[in-house]
Amino acid sequence: MQITAAALAQLIDATVEGDPDVVITGPARIEEATAGQITFLANPAYEHHLYQTMATAVLVSREFQPKTSIRPTLLRVDNVYETVSGLLQVYQQDQVATLPRQVSQHASVADSAVLGDEVRVGKFTVVCERATIGAGTVVLDQVYIGDGVRIGTNCLIHPGARILQGCVIGDNCVLHANAVIGSDGFGFLPDGEGNYRKVPQVGKVVIEDDVEIGAGTTIDRATMGATLIRKGVKLDNLIQVGHNVEIGPNTVIAAQAGIAGSTKIGANCRIGGQVGIAGHLTVADGTNLQAQSGVARHIKETNQALGGSPAFSYRDYVKSTILIGRLPDLYRRLARIEKKVNE
Amino acid sequence: MQITAAALAQLIDATVEGDPDVVITGPARIEEATAGQITFLANPAYEHHLYQTMATAVLVSREFQPKTSIRPTLLRVDNVYETVSGLLQVYQQDQVATLPRQVSQHASVADSAVLGDEVRVGKFTVVCERATIGAGTVVLDQVYIGDGVRIGTNCLIHPGARILQGCVIGDNCVLHANAVIGSDGFGFLPDGEGNYRKVPQVGKVVIEDDVEIGAGTTIDRATMGATLIRKGVKLDNLIQVGHNVEIGPNTVIAAQAGIAGSTKIGANCRIGGQVGIAGHLTVADGTNLQAQSGVARHIKETNQALGGSPAFSYRDYVKSTILIGRLPDLYRRLARIEKKVNE
Amino acid sequence: MQITAAALAQLIDATVEGDPDVVITGPARIEEATAGQITFLANPAYEHHLYQTMATAVLVSREFQPKTSIRPTLLRVDNVYETVSGLLQVYQQDQVATLPRQVSQHASVADSAVLGDEVRVGKFTVVCERATIGAGTVVLDQVYIGDGVRIGTNCLIHPGARILQGCVIGDNCVLHANAVIGSDGFGFLPDGEGNYRKVPQVGKVVIEDDVEIGAGTTIDRATMGATLIRKGVKLDNLIQVGHNVEIGPNTVIAAQAGIAGSTKIGANCRIGGQVGIAGHLTVADGTNLQAQSGVARHIKETNQALGGSPAFSYRDYVKSTILIGRLPDLYRRLARIEKKVNE
Repeated sequence: MQITAAALAQLIDATVEGDPDVVITGPARIEEATAGQITFLANPAYEHHLYQTMATAVLVSREFQPKTSIRPTLLRVDNVYETVSGLLQVYQQDQVATLPRQVSQHASVADSAVLGDEVRVGKFTVVCERATIGAGTVVLDQVYIGDGVRIGTNCLIHPGARILQGCVIGDNCVLHANAVIGSDGFGFLPDGEGNYRKVPQVGKVVIEDDVEIGAGTTIDRATMGATLIRKGVKLDNLIQVGHNVEIGPNTVIAAQAGIAGSTKIGANCRIGGQVGIAGHLTVADGTNLQAQSGVARHIKETNQALGGSPAFSYRDYVKSTILIGRLPDLYRRLARIEKKVNE
Repeated sequence: MQITAAALAQLIDATVEGDPDVVITGPARIEEATAGQITFLANPAYEHHLYQTMATAVLVSREFQPKTSIRPTLLRVDNVYETVSGLLQVYQQDQVATLPRQVSQHASVADSAVLGDEVRVGKFTVVCERATIGAGTVVLDQVYIGDGVRIGTNCLIHPGARILQGCVIGDNCVLHANAVIGSDGFGFLPDGEGNYRKVPQVGKVVIEDDVEIGAGTTIDRATMGATLIRKGVKLDNLIQVGHNVEIGPNTVIAAQAGIAGSTKIGANCRIGGQVGIAGHLTVADGTNLQAQSGVARHIKETNQALGGSPAFSYRDYVKSTILIGRLPDLYRRLARIEKKVNE
Repeated sequence: MQITAAALAQLIDATVEGDPDVVITGPARIEEATAGQITFLANPAYEHHLYQTMATAVLVSREFQPKTSIRPTLLRVDNVYETVSGLLQVYQQDQVATLPRQVSQHASVADSAVLGDEVRVGKFTVVCERATIGAGTVVLDQVYIGDGVRIGTNCLIHPGARILQGCVIGDNCVLHANAVIGSDGFGFLPDGEGNYRKVPQVGKVVIEDDVEIGAGTTIDRATMGATLIRKGVKLDNLIQVGHNVEIGPNTVIAAQAGIAGSTKIGANCRIGGQVGIAGHLTVADGTNLQAQSGVARHIKETNQALGGSPAFSYRDYVKSTILIGRLPDLYRRLARIEKKVNE
């Protein structure tokens, strides 16, 4: 990447303030940018860095008013984050050499597996019997693709991911390193003498299009039927999804959250890190769960914000948690009143 | 699977209500079952599905009374869950072709390793020096079995599991994908200048018979001696077990729980998801810990149900958490009283 | 190991009480030690074991006063834990045969990769283009080292660890089994119609010297720039570190904690298990976070102990949580007063 501010401005539909002829070599964060780099300011909490940055150019919103005069060239755009995202995309394609689309001689691909055009299969990757991989999908090294697994087109599967027997992955999905798709559901029956007998887990996991699954995340197969991850869902790292769970379209879940078996999460929910949701529940569309909250009942009304464990209205949660810190004071006040009244 | 309701009823000791001649082709959940399938009703929360299911047959308890007449054939049994579990077992054996018991030519097995009869070793799996694997054990692909590891008979080790040097696994155990057995305990000594020096972890992990370890779960080796997982323990996914922990027989732990070093959990405990238990504690037999609770003291009395962080009696926990939500109201009431009394 | 108590005492600068001629064969924990073994007593909670141990010798502090006479030989030292740690080190070197420093014929090492002297590369390990591995580093089996990764000297990389493209590891680091370094940060932009578009993550992870990363822990690469793990940091198992996080020198974090994107943790912090820290925050040096606590605001004052979610002063946290259990009683008292005052 080597482009003048003026030329870049034209590409991204920006207006230029300052020297349009400076040359930009790549993107960087505002705390770290050095001469030649372009950075951005979107979150006001970072504004103080703007007045010290060594960056050559800075993306800002059309409305932004700096508090003092600024050395770097400003590029004003409608949506700073979107423009940055677009720039990174260009930069990434620049940086990552296109991986050859071929089956490594160190891979093991079953004769009955079916690979589409332009598929890459990496080193020490196993593709089992009757698996199918759609055109343009890149399977990196040391991946496991079990019997009868179906993977759509243009997916990216990172090293160490395990897609176990019979699971289905849609188009344009990304599976990160060491993710596990299709581990057994946690189902056991007590035998009356304290021992547990395993309930066979004969279902599968179905992941629809445009889904991203984080590193180390585990998704259990259904006991019967399918654990279902709908179109556009984004799961962060180290998340646990139990058997027969369904996660609705475009729901986003942060790291280390856990969802117990047979629970059905709606569409467009935003679920924070380390949230826990009990089994056999329904969570309505648009639910917003504060990090570390715990859900133990159905959430029927849509678009609520909830916090706490067990979770309740986020507004009340904020008030109550402040008051928890004041409990020692409250007890003192109550004792004082009691004394006064009983005198 | 292709069997009439009458023939199946005889196999599972059921009584038939409705057409005994319908043909059943496989099991399914009640929300999803289609013509030809058998489903079941055990949890009353799912009863409304019964009146709409397209299933050909439904397993119910001997006592169950439907609210209206029902189209599918009913098969009445003593224990619905147990019968379903048995049916799934049959179906699974039907479905999964028996894996050939052989050592893959893509595996690496040390000359000094000892393999019993009918052992399978998968592709890109490593079996190190002096490891022993008991008869009938299936080790799938990309597994690591370290120096001197001993694995019993009839175990199933899923892809990407790591059993590190010196650890011991009993008979009939299942290790799920990417589980780690025998990572170093987290032991460091401060050197007085803010740095930490590693305490060597020279112990091991011993897992007894009939244990199941979930996907991505990590069990640290002991500093000295052994981290001990007793007979019949079931661990779900992404659980952390610290060094020198002992988990008693038939204890069941849900996903993402964590147990810090040297803690001793009793037998027949039921520990919920995302529970945390601090180090050097004893938890009595039969303890039942609510999901997301935190234990920071010894639990000496057996068979208690506890919740909250720090955990206390589950009954009181339920009451208290309801009251937390009412704290803003409580503060208002207190202020009102104070005003009145002080007037 | 086969040494008399007298000879060992000389090596570790101990004074002997009891028979100096007994022969010691190895170390063990005080609950488990058998004849011939040396054990130790440092934590007073374990003192009762001292009066029953079968151990031949016991390390104790110079000040320790047994309550009755003791059978084993006592070795008194200045710092019991340090001496034990030193003994284990000797024992470990005794036990683990030195691994040959060679590249396995079952590894795949790119022609452009650069390996220092005395490097080991294990079976089914992949070392990609332009990666460099410093002298004396041991890379065990089934590890992935991506394009352009740089690893320092004398590191130990356990089976199944994934170090993705462009990441940097310092000297003397330990990466445990199935750890993931450099997974994509969790960055998505809503498109206004409920869908999310991925923000490319083009940065990397930089890990400085003397760092230990636990089994299954995931560290995301920066969107731009670097996620930074400073010298001497110790991370336990199943921890999540978000993109652009910085963790200061010698900070220690227990298992299953999670740190969201762009947060900056200071030096010498001690962070408990299952702690969650929200994004874009600063946590001051020396902060001590109780297990399961949650941080949702900047922590500016150094060396504070905090607990709870959201976290506040640990002292107040302890008081408040006790009072939560007494809320039902408090409500009763308040109602009684109200009745009295309103009569």
